[in-house]
Order: sequence, then structure tokens, then C-alpha cells
Amino acid sequence: MARRRYAVIGTGGIGGLYGAKLANAGFDVTFIGRSDVDVLRSGGLHVSSIDGDIDLPTVTAQRDGSEVGPVDVVLITIKTMGNASLGPLLSELVGPDTVVAAMQNGFGIETSIAQLVPGATVLGVLCFVCTTRVAPGRISHVDYGHVTVGEHSPGGCAMGATPAAQALVGDFTVAGIVAKIRDDLIAARWEKLVWNMPYNGLSVLLDANTDELMADPGLRDLIEEMMEEVVLMARLHGHPVADGFVAKMLANTEKMNPYATSMKLDHEARRPLELESIYDAPLAATASSAGDAPLLRALAAQLHFLDSRDREQ
Amino acid sequence: MARRRYAVIGTGGIGGLYGAKLANAGFDVTFIGRSDVDVLRSGGLHVSSIDGDIDLPTVTAQRDGSEVGPVDVVLITIKTMGNASLGPLLSELVGPDTVVAAMQNGFGIETSIAQLVPGATVLGVLCFVCTTRVAPGRISHVDYGHVTVGEHSPGGCAMGATPAAQALVGDFTVAGIVAKIRDDLIAARWEKLVWNMPYNGLSVLLDANTDELMADPGLRDLIEEMMEEVVLMARLHGHPVADGFVAKMLANTEKMNPYATSMKLDHEARRPLELESIYDAPLAATASSAGDAPLLRALAAQLHFLDSRDREQ
Repeated sequence: MARRRYAVIGTGGIGGLYGAKLANAGFDVTFIGRSDVDVLRSGGLHVSSIDGDIDLPTVTAQRDGSEVGPVDVVLITIKTMGNASLGPLLSELVGPDTVVAAMQNGFGIETSIAQLVPGATVLGVLCFVCTTRVAPGRISHVDYGHVTVGEHSPGGCAMGATPAAQALVGDFTVAGIVAKIRDDLIAARWEKLVWNMPYNGLSVLLDANTDELMADPGLRDLIEEMMEEVVLMARLHGHPVADGFVAKMLANTEKMNPYATSMKLDHEARRPLELESIYDAPLAATASSAGDAPLLRALAAQLHFLDSRDREQ
Repeated sequence: MARRRYAVIGTGGIGGLYGAKLANAGFDVTFIGRSDVDVLRSGGLHVSSIDGDIDLPTVTAQRDGSEVGPVDVVLITIKTMGNASLGPLLSELVGPDTVVAAMQNGFGIETSIAQLVPGATVLGVLCFVCTTRVAPGRISHVDYGHVTVGEHSPGGCAMGATPAAQALVGDFTVAGIVAKIRDDLIAARWEKLVWNMPYNGLSVLLDANTDELMADPGLRDLIEEMMEEVVLMARLHGHPVADGFVAKMLANTEKMNPYATSMKLDHEARRPLELESIYDAPLAATASSAGDAPLLRALAAQLHFLDSRDREQ
């Protein structure tokens, strides 16, 4: 079987790492980016990784889809704020059999992508990884790396191990990426938010890495309370997370190498924050179900203030 | 009647402003400070005030109480963190008839001062004022200025218009300070916390002045929720604040000149924050009464993290 053709939208920490692993395994990968394209073309892509470094002296990189055409799989790895303007690009990359996979954080992502590519199969891919673009074409992968894959359904129901999800997991496995299928993509999204909602926001507000947050007993308690709010939201939304999940997340984070969340790095660089997908959408999803999350709502309000001020400046 | 003798401990925004007003009105005022004493002795005290500027070319300033002796009134205007070490100084300033007045923010202040001066009359003075020490001997008073005075009782009960409170209000009125008596000092303290607990903390976390906080609809709602938590705590503590108080505070703050809270200035200068008296003590006072204040507890945890980091550095 011919190895499938991938288009990776975004050349940051996620796109750079997973795209490099696929290219390194022999898949036909085209990176689609903006400011980094010239560097990728001239200098290639280099990943410093706990799994072993990858140096790709030559990679295919494009600024748009006109010379790419329909591919087998599109991996969307940009910040979610950019999704709304992906329509023209996706129309060039997506053919009748193309699978579109969102490797992004947050809630409601697949629904908005599905609206851009009616009829296409849309997957959600959750990345459990600490990876950062340190310079154009230079990626630093410091911890974790596994992904879970689930297929989107308009009604939000569990889709199980669909052919598209199985095929992606198969390719990723060939590329040395630990990948598994989640029957219920929405439950997986909620579980990811259990980590992202407390840590992303607090790391921005307090200008602190995960290790600093966890070393403070008061903050550790606060993080746990915020995690329990996400657990409650997930339950109210009909996609409960497993018992003991909060304790596992706290223990994992304590063992993790000190990590600056991507939202913290975005704030430091005065880039827009992914508040819509990581805070607003999940909080809105449960507001009508009498769900309450006072601590996370407060956190979101504070983050929106900082984000608005950054954007004005 | 001879005008009474005052010792003002602290030469910051509060001590400088109110001490200058008393001295300007002819009271015998000794300022007791540390680093500012030399400047006060050589250059005097200068207040730029919305009530009219005050220039005192000559003021009495001391580093300790040995040359001062017992006075009629001690005004404590330092940060509350310093109260615990005031014992030796107060023993020199306090005689049988001395009244000790705490012009400080927070909760439980009078109780800790009363322990330092057993038998002395202790007043609490709440200052509604925007005043800042811009340099040694230089005070900027930009808004408000009135005070309320109440007498401390060990049991926390309303003491009414006691002779000591009436005398202080009398002197302050002579000095052009709008002053009134509050029968229930603890209720007055809770009311002050309705403002201080949201604005002080959020101004630190978000590096924002009051006008910026109030201009953001999400933050305005958050501030209101935090104020309602203080109102609930006050009620659980048996000292309810008046109906409509939150709405009044919000409206007042919206009309106020843009203001950087003293806690924000302290944080910017990496000085210790008054978290014990403004957050920990009131939150502890109601914890056993099933009082819950999730937003304020979260805010306090975040502030403690920042404060600890500042102190380590």
C-alpha cells in the first residue's frame, strides 16, 4: 500500500514535531505555513526530541494549497483562532476522500471545521505532548508525545473505532507516534480540558511554569478545585470522565518536567490567546445545563482582560 | 483646651496626608519613620492634595520613641505586616491615657494591636482615600479623604460613640478631615473589605488600575461577584453590611479617578503584600461558619504565590 500523502497546516511545536515524524517515516508530507516557509525550504526541519532527534535537511513547504492539491490527510495544527479563515486553503487540499484532522486544544473545534468542509470526514486528535517551536524550523520536544484520535459526529455521540480513525492511528504508529483511538471524542476533549483549563490560565496570570504552580500548596488545591469544575461540566454535558482522573492528572503533572504552557508562551510574545476554544466554548456548552464553574469563569474573565489589552497594544 | 499631642507611626500616603493635616491645623505631631526621617527633618513634608496643597517646611520626625514619650494619640499608618513588631515603640508612646488608633486596612487589626498595649483604648480608623507617597516627604492625595472611626471591643460588639472615638473625630474635624463615628467597627471593616478584597487583588494579578478593571464587562461582573462574597461573609460573621452597598461601591469606583491600589504599588516595588489582614484573616473568620467564598479564596491563593515569589527574590 502506498504511503499516504499529508498536508500539515502549521509549522509550530505540534505541526513541526508530528509532521517531522511522519516525513521521517517516509510519508509524503507538505508543510503549509507562513513566515517559516522560507527557512523550511532553505534549511529544513530539525526536531530536538526526547524520542531521538530528527533532522530533515529537505522538506516540502508551501504558503498556500495551489501547488499541493487534494491530499489523503490534512492535519490542522495552527492555533484555533485561525480555523475560521481556513476555508479557502481547505477547499484546495480536500478532495472526496480526504480526512481532516484537528490536532488542536479545546472544545467545539471539529464542529467548526466540519462546517468548512461539508461531507468530509473530520477527526479530532488530542496531543499529550510538551513541544515548542523555538525558532523557524526548530522544534523542541521535551516531554510526552502520545495522541488519541476520535471521529467527529455532528450530534457529538461516540463513534468508536471508525475506518478513518484506524487509518490515522495506523500511519502514526508507523511513524513512531504512540496513538490510540477514543470511542468518545467529546469525552476525550473534556479530559484534556481538565488539564488545560487550570494550567494554561494560571500559568499566564501568574507567569509560572507547571512545576512552580504545583510546588505551592494553595495553588495545588486551587488547580484541583478547577479540575473538579471541569469534571462537573463534563458530567453535565453527558460525557463523564473516568473516576480518579483528577488525581491522575495532578500526579502526572507533578512528575512532568517543568513546562511553560503554550498559552503562557503566547502571552509572553503578546500573541492572541486561545480563549474561545479552551474557555468560552466549554463554559458555554454547560451554562444551559445549570453547570456552574465559578473559578473557571473567573479565570476566563481575567484572561480575556489580558488578551484584550495585548491585542490593543 | 490644649491641642492634643499625636505620634504618627509611618510616613507613607496615609501617615503623611493625615499627619500633615493635623500638623497644619496646629496639633503637635511627631512623625515616626525609618528611611524618610532625614528627608522630613531637612526638607519638611509636602502634600499635593485635591483639598488644597499643604507645605510644612518643618516637621518633627523621629526614628524611635525614646525622645517622644507618651502622647495623647498614636496613629498607626504602616503596613499591617509591621504591627507585630510595634511592641517596643508603643511601650514608649503609650501612657495611661493614650489612645491608639489603627489607620489600616483589613481584618483583626485592632485585636492584634490591643494585645501589644493591654488596657489601652484602641480605635479603628478606616480611610476612604486615594493617597500615595511619591517620594520621601512627598505625598500625592488624588481622591476622597474621609474616615470613619470606631472603638475596638474584645468581643467585637458595637461600641457606639465612645469618648475616645468622639475626641478623635473632633480633632480630625478641626484638621479639616471629614470624619464620622461608626457604632459597629467590625461592620465598617467588612464594608471596607467589600472594596479592598476584589480591587487590591485583581489590580495586582492583572497589573491594572481601577478604571481598566471597571471598563471590562467580564471583570466588572467578576468584581461584583467577589463583593457579594464579602457581603455573605459579613452576614455569616454577624455584622451585615447595608442593602445596596455593593451597587454603591461599584458606582463610586466607576466615578473615581483612575487609581492604582496600594497593593498594586507594593507588588510593582516587590514589597510584601498585606495578604494576612486583607485576605487570610477575613476568610478565616468565616470559614468555621460554613461561609464560602470560592472566588476570593482563589484570588488569595494566587496572591500568596506571587507574594512568596517576590519575597524569595
